[in-house]
Amino acid sequence: MADTLRSVNPTTGAAFGDPIAETTPEAVAQAAAAARAAAPGLAAMRPHDRGDLMRAVAAALTGHEDAIIALADAESGLGEARLRGELARTTGQFELYAAYAETGAVLDVVIDHAAPRATPPRPDLRRWNTPLGPVAVYAASNFPLAFGVAGTDTAAALAAGCPVVAKAHASQPATAVLLGAIITEALEKRGADPRVFAVVGGFQAGLDLIRDPNIKAGAFTGSIAGGRALAEEAAGRPEPIPFYGELGSLNPVVVTPEAVAQRGPALVEEFAASMTLGAGQFCTKPGLLFLPEGHGLDEALAEAVRAKQVHPMLNGRIREAYAAEAARLASHPQARFAVEPSEAEGGFAVTPGLIEAPASAIDGDDALLHECFGPTALVLTYADAAELERVLPQLPGGLTATVQLATSTDPIAQTALPLLAERSGRVLVNGWPTGVAVTHAQHHGGPWPATTNARYSSVGTGAAARFVRPVAYQSTPEPLLPEALHDDNPLGVQRRVDGVLEPAAGA
Amino acid sequence: MADTLRSVNPTTGAAFGDPIAETTPEAVAQAAAAARAAAPGLAAMRPHDRGDLMRAVAAALTGHEDAIIALADAESGLGEARLRGELARTTGQFELYAAYAETGAVLDVVIDHAAPRATPPRPDLRRWNTPLGPVAVYAASNFPLAFGVAGTDTAAALAAGCPVVAKAHASQPATAVLLGAIITEALEKRGADPRVFAVVGGFQAGLDLIRDPNIKAGAFTGSIAGGRALAEEAAGRPEPIPFYGELGSLNPVVVTPEAVAQRGPALVEEFAASMTLGAGQFCTKPGLLFLPEGHGLDEALAEAVRAKQVHPMLNGRIREAYAAEAARLASHPQARFAVEPSEAEGGFAVTPGLIEAPASAIDGDDALLHECFGPTALVLTYADAAELERVLPQLPGGLTATVQLATSTDPIAQTALPLLAERSGRVLVNGWPTGVAVTHAQHHGGPWPATTNARYSSVGTGAAARFVRPVAYQSTPEPLLPEALHDDNPLGVQRRVDGVLEPAAGA
Repeated sequence: MADTLRSVNPTTGAAFGDPIAETTPEAVAQAAAAARAAAPGLAAMRPHDRGDLMRAVAAALTGHEDAIIALADAESGLGEARLRGELARTTGQFELYAAYAETGAVLDVVIDHAAPRATPPRPDLRRWNTPLGPVAVYAASNFPLAFGVAGTDTAAALAAGCPVVAKAHASQPATAVLLGAIITEALEKRGADPRVFAVVGGFQAGLDLIRDPNIKAGAFTGSIAGGRALAEEAAGRPEPIPFYGELGSLNPVVVTPEAVAQRGPALVEEFAASMTLGAGQFCTKPGLLFLPEGHGLDEALAEAVRAKQVHPMLNGRIREAYAAEAARLASHPQARFAVEPSEAEGGFAVTPGLIEAPASAIDGDDALLHECFGPTALVLTYADAAELERVLPQLPGGLTATVQLATSTDPIAQTALPLLAERSGRVLVNGWPTGVAVTHAQHHGGPWPATTNARYSSVGTGAAARFVRPVAYQSTPEPLLPEALHDDNPLGVQRRVDGVLEPAAGA
Repeated sequence: MADTLRSVNPTTGAAFGDPIAETTPEAVAQAAAAARAAAPGLAAMRPHDRGDLMRAVAAALTGHEDAIIALADAESGLGEARLRGELARTTGQFELYAAYAETGAVLDVVIDHAAPRATPPRPDLRRWNTPLGPVAVYAASNFPLAFGVAGTDTAAALAAGCPVVAKAHASQPATAVLLGAIITEALEKRGADPRVFAVVGGFQAGLDLIRDPNIKAGAFTGSIAGGRALAEEAAGRPEPIPFYGELGSLNPVVVTPEAVAQRGPALVEEFAASMTLGAGQFCTKPGLLFLPEGHGLDEALAEAVRAKQVHPMLNGRIREAYAAEAARLASHPQARFAVEPSEAEGGFAVTPGLIEAPASAIDGDDALLHECFGPTALVLTYADAAELERVLPQLPGGLTATVQLATSTDPIAQTALPLLAERSGRVLVNGWPTGVAVTHAQHHGGPWPATTNARYSSVGTGAAARFVRPVAYQSTPEPLLPEALHDDNPLGVQRRVDGVLEPAAGA
């Protein structure tokens, strides 16, 4: 008998709906084989046709907005307002990647014409990117839509021309099934091959999927332990495949004395809001706040954090781990609770917390440098620039790092910013890391353990580059070349010809 | 007592010169720590200064040409003419990467200005690439210069701004020491930090190096077994690091019946020359020749191969493996020797060989699909397009694949070319894969087991991208931004501003 997944409402802790069977090993293999069979057709689509297909998926998701929001809210407890915004971001991702696919930028076309009189003579060489093949996408629970089975990894893989087999998160199985059905219907309505997208569920199905020979890449958002285990599975296969895991991050924020003087109380409010957003279950939650000694904000901080009403945690396991990790951090000999978090009434509800320690507590000791997933953060008090210079290089790699400053000539900011850039994928000034703009320049990644591969982003157009590989054609007659490599550029794609960049037609 | 490495002359089999001590674990750690200490300085160099530094290294190598050639020839037996050409390629690589570093293309600067009235509003975001840090480079024996300790991986890493600790190949320890001394002297002469380049030697030193916490990436050219083992070490570290291995490749060549009719005898000569180049010890050696049934070239092929005088094998172990693998292939029930290879007089000398089988012998059976490193190849006779359609998708991933055709409307070519492109990094028409042009469009990589990561090339300017990671700056005042991200582009680097490509100044 197959195991089942249950929907549980975090606001009540009660299970609801019908049990959903975990995907059997045979069904996982079938989904991967179907994706492999559909891969050449998807790869052969012209950029504009692929763009149209992706916009149709976005429109279908919007068309089922109410049903999606209701179910995602029941399974995540994140609330309607947040989830409506998240759905808009999710469909926006499909649209951005669609436009990106249309420019042909993901193809990265490079043409070097023959140079028969060069030393040594060079043949005609033309390179483009081809899709890797079916991608296993592992959905995260903290963004049921934007990082779920129809999230950024799925949109990026489709833009690259790769079919997707997405593994549902155990906390949101019904939402995943619904999203899968909507996408399948949208594909069928357009006469597209529905095998380019499938959803599977269950822990064993996730393992079976990364081991399946028809899967050619993996993308994951979740815990360090889970991501590391899947990354090692991917590397240890008879045919190793690339694996992109986005894991944990502390997201340090350094506040300069000038900034405290200029707007201390406002920073306290903003920090408390950012840190407790989504019950602190953001991968970009500012979990580490560096304040200068004598900042005088202790009471304001405790008050602001205590006043925050937060969503319940996503599931019971996360709630337990939250309490345990907060207690572990506060038990450090140099740390103490400024606000002690606790469990609260109703489902997986909790209250936020705050832990204080001197910055010297992390000097040569990484016990405090572990993410507490949930609405508790650590405030570290630093003495001066010299102390930051000593401790900041000891921080683990992260997705983001922030400096709050008053002037760009501030010596503390000048010290902190380059040190933070060395350990992070995104550096912010006078902002909060919990918003991630989906643009070309965005980078949502960072050194280990933020990701398994710091070269890549799971947000922004760069995310599609994870799922392609280059192929060069040497001295190949035009009738045998892919259209994107023809001299007259019939697809109007962005390209680099004899070293000179040419934008996409209409760009 | 430390183990030692010995120089051995492949033309005589005799050891020469003083024993060279293997690098101790302490010395490996020291070299990695020194590289780490030198990393920020190298990273902070302006593109043009880095370019100048690399050209100085190239000039120093050219300045010591005679000494390098003499020693590399004594340790490799590859002959003066070939090695002089290879040194020119090696210095050419440094110069190409220097020019590439100067365009700033490796920085991949993307600037998206703030869009406060967009929905949702977008902050100012600017992204560039920063160096990963010290790179462990594993030298190959078959190209003592172009893929040696001063080879393409080293030049690409320096262009990316990463220090290099290069592990010498056990067959060419003295050449590695000499190259290391020349580079160190060139760096010191310019007043540059000599810690950005070091050479280590010994099997254990290679392992220690990939495990060293100061090493942030690895690049390797060599065997599947060696590359796989190092790749798993890299993935299994407490902090996993990217690893780029270029391993084995069969490099199939499909000859159409039209091509046989048009120029069969010429193709036979060209194939024999390409297959025996460097004693068949090229990663791009055409090891698999598909000929149409009734090609009538059997005798010519045997004669051409038998007539080839080849260099000795690089070392005794490779010579033994060559004989054993050729015998294993020929023992396949459907295969036979057309020309039986053998050991020859003098050092590690061998004679070339040829094995024949019907293409159906690889249908559902991969026993014949293993690289025989050395001057022996497999000729497979195919019946028709349908047979190619069945067997070509069963080939392992490779660096290259070639079609020899007479017209681009040839149905066999039309069938074979896309199937070969799916399994290779470079597709050639009417050429031979053993020449690898070093250009922008080049791709020297391919699906497993050709490489551990099909996204990357170890030849061509794309090779530098393996050693950088992006960092995005959000809402950061210009005085705190790296110069490359300033609005007025003081470094004149290539960039993409609000979606529009801007070439490098002077490009």
